Amino acid sequence: MPPVHPAAPPLAIAQWLNTDTPLTLDALCGRVVMLHAFQMLCPGCVAHGLPQAAKAHEMFARRDLVVIGLHTVFEHHAVTGPEALKAFVHEYRLPFPIGIDTAAAHGPIPLTMQAYELGGTPSVVLIDREGRIRLNQLGRIDDLALGALIGELIAGGAPAGRRTGAAAGRDSAAACDDDACTA
Amino acid sequence: MPPVHPAAPPLAIAQWLNTDTPLTLDALCGRVVMLHAFQMLCPGCVAHGLPQAAKAHEMFARRDLVVIGLHTVFEHHAVTGPEALKAFVHEYRLPFPIGIDTAAAHGPIPLTMQAYELGGTPSVVLIDREGRIRLNQLGRIDDLALGALIGELIAGGAPAGRRTGAAAGRDSAAACDDDACTA
Amino acid sequence: MPPVHPAAPPLAIAQWLNTDTPLTLDALCGRVVMLHAFQMLCPGCVAHGLPQAAKAHEMFARRDLVVIGLHTVFEHHAVTGPEALKAFVHEYRLPFPIGIDTAAAHGPIPLTMQAYELGGTPSVVLIDREGRIRLNQLGRIDDLALGALIGELIAGGAPAGRRTGAAAGRDSAAACDDDACTA
Amino acid sequence: MPPVHPAAPPLAIAQWLNTDTPLTLDALCGRVVMLHAFQMLCPGCVAHGLPQAAKAHEMFARRDLVVIGLHTVFEHHAVTGPEALKAFVHEYRLPFPIGIDTAAAHGPIPLTMQAYELGGTPSVVLIDREGRIRLNQLGRIDDLALGALIGELIAGGAPAGRRTGAAAGRDSAAACDDDACTA
Repeated sequence: MPPVHPAAPPLAIAQWLNTDTPLTLDALCGRVVMLHAFQMLCPGCVAHGLPQAAKAHEMFARRDLVVIGLHTVFEHHAVTGPEALKAFVHEYRLPFPIGIDTAAAHGPIPLTMQAYELGGTPSVVLIDREGRIRLNQLGRIDDLALGALIGELIAGGAPAGRRTGAAAGRDSAAACDDDACTA
Repeated sequence: MPPVHPAAPPLAIAQWLNTDTPLTLDALCGRVVMLHAFQMLCPGCVAHGLPQAAKAHEMFARRDLVVIGLHTVFEHHAVTGPEALKAFVHEYRLPFPIGIDTAAAHGPIPLTMQAYELGGTPSVVLIDREGRIRLNQLGRIDDLALGALIGELIAGGAPAGRRTGAAAGRDSAAACDDDACTA
Repeated sequence: MPPVHPAAPPLAIAQWLNTDTPLTLDALCGRVVMLHAFQMLCPGCVAHGLPQAAKAHEMFARRDLVVIGLHTVFEHHAVTGPEALKAFVHEYRLPFPIGIDTAAAHGPIPLTMQAYELGGTPSVVLIDREGRIRLNQLGRIDDLALGALIGELIAGGAPAGRRTGAAAGRDSAAACDDDACTA
Repeated sequence: MPPVHPAAPPLAIAQWLNTDTPLTLDALCGRVVMLHAFQMLCPGCVAHGLPQAAKAHEMFARRDLVVIGLHTVFEHHAVTGPEALKAFVHEYRLPFPIGIDTAAAHGPIPLTMQAYELGGTPSVVLIDREGRIRLNQLGRIDDLALGALIGELIAGGAPAGRRTGAAAGRDSAAACDDDACTA
């Protein structure tokens, strides 16, 4: 029996940068979507994740891949609001649309991050043309491995979904190392 | 009309390393093949090409990708023979099968290099499951781009064949820079 | 006639992080001082300058080198105040004392940055054991070159002072590239 | 009591490349000398050691530093003779004088390598203006640390000599990893 790939939940975005019109996964159905979840003060995001997302955006924009940044703040909320993020996006010249994940009524984890059960930042979520989650991975991903998954999804292939950084441990203290911040 | 992909010519191998039985493209039909053409004294091969080939070998061996090294000596023949190559392969711990391209009766360019019209080293040739050439590129290739092509071919997709480093200029003097040696 | 090295002006620090007692150049007389001027949203500082400063701090702390970070904000003041900087210093685990340069009454350039005529960020200023400026350089500095200057100053040698990124162009718009932000 | 630095033994060179006249330490007395011991099939030498030596050569040639490559072959002698080395030096565009260490009458370790008790390749030996050994280190050396030692010696300072990779274990089998080959 083939693996069952869960449907990607809707994005809960409070505010968009780098796009005039809000993006929805429904409207992107038929295309491959790469969500890059990051925080502007996450060292692994700045060093590895965001440059990789920018490269994927530039390399595959014409090959039906849509790259979306997702600012999933789960620590340092007071100093990483929309104005701080705008300055960050300007200085780092990020070229792709970025949605600010909506804060939860209770707790530090924003809504889209909860819905996707992201383990922290950076996380990459790959969604296939049918709107199903095919990758949901926390931490640094090798370019060659990520490229192969993107290539398979663009070609319509069906790699087994992989999952790293489970939602377990949510109640632990947030912490960052060189590669990732865990929630 | 879709692009026509040329059939991959047979490999003309004088001697194999890292494999007990000689490899043929016919026997590999149905699998995706990555040929990595290199010279042991080519700086761009040592710095970028061979590590990338080794990574692809380790990452996708179970996904129907066969990586084959091709020692296409077109300069310094006297000091890069089989014994020198064996020492090199040992020290660099190259893990994939390597075929020594057969020297031509006339001229410095060996036979497989001629048949594939390789422009120099490092060159990557990707061959699809039907034995057709889908990529033939001289010089450094980004991991994300190479990964996407591998992913498409594994999934059975059909990227447009690309060709860099044409066979023109064959009569020019061989020369290396940081990224490649041209024939 | 040997070059004349200007005396290092006093630091005008509004607030210190990572130290219980404020630092003064007078009190550090007799030791070699490396000032690393940065902004938390300067890509070149995050990628190159701050890791280099942290390495120098760890490598030469016992060899009479004092590394001091200088947060010289000349753009994005509203989102790079003390609380934002504290979160940044925490996430990037910066280990050396950091002084926040005092804002000027008029204009975006803070006081210490003005006194040293820094051209932007990252900038490195090396001060010898007699309190004289021996290097004042904007942009990325090679580790081998910086190490040699530090070694000469620790040994009491007298390299010719070099100056890059002059104070000219102060009225131009602030801008960042991969290596530096110019004021 | 200050540390005693041993006098640098004479170089026993069978053949020189990249210089018309043989070099001797006696003739270089008064200058700082950096010996870089390498093998052309040593991965750590190719990836780290030789580029560092070339950078030091270019950066400090006018500051009284003389960089000398030392080809200390202790394995794969048959395929790394003078003709192979010349092709290697040509392709990697090594800019500094290189001496081929003289083979011993018995055993694989050449004479200069024995005299300096080098532990393998890459090794860096720094010799001060008085002809004394101030550093003798096997393996990868950080640019910032090496720069500081060079700077101190150029300035005439007196860092404590350090020694890594002792001559012990000479009878063990030669082996390479990513950073070094040990003899």
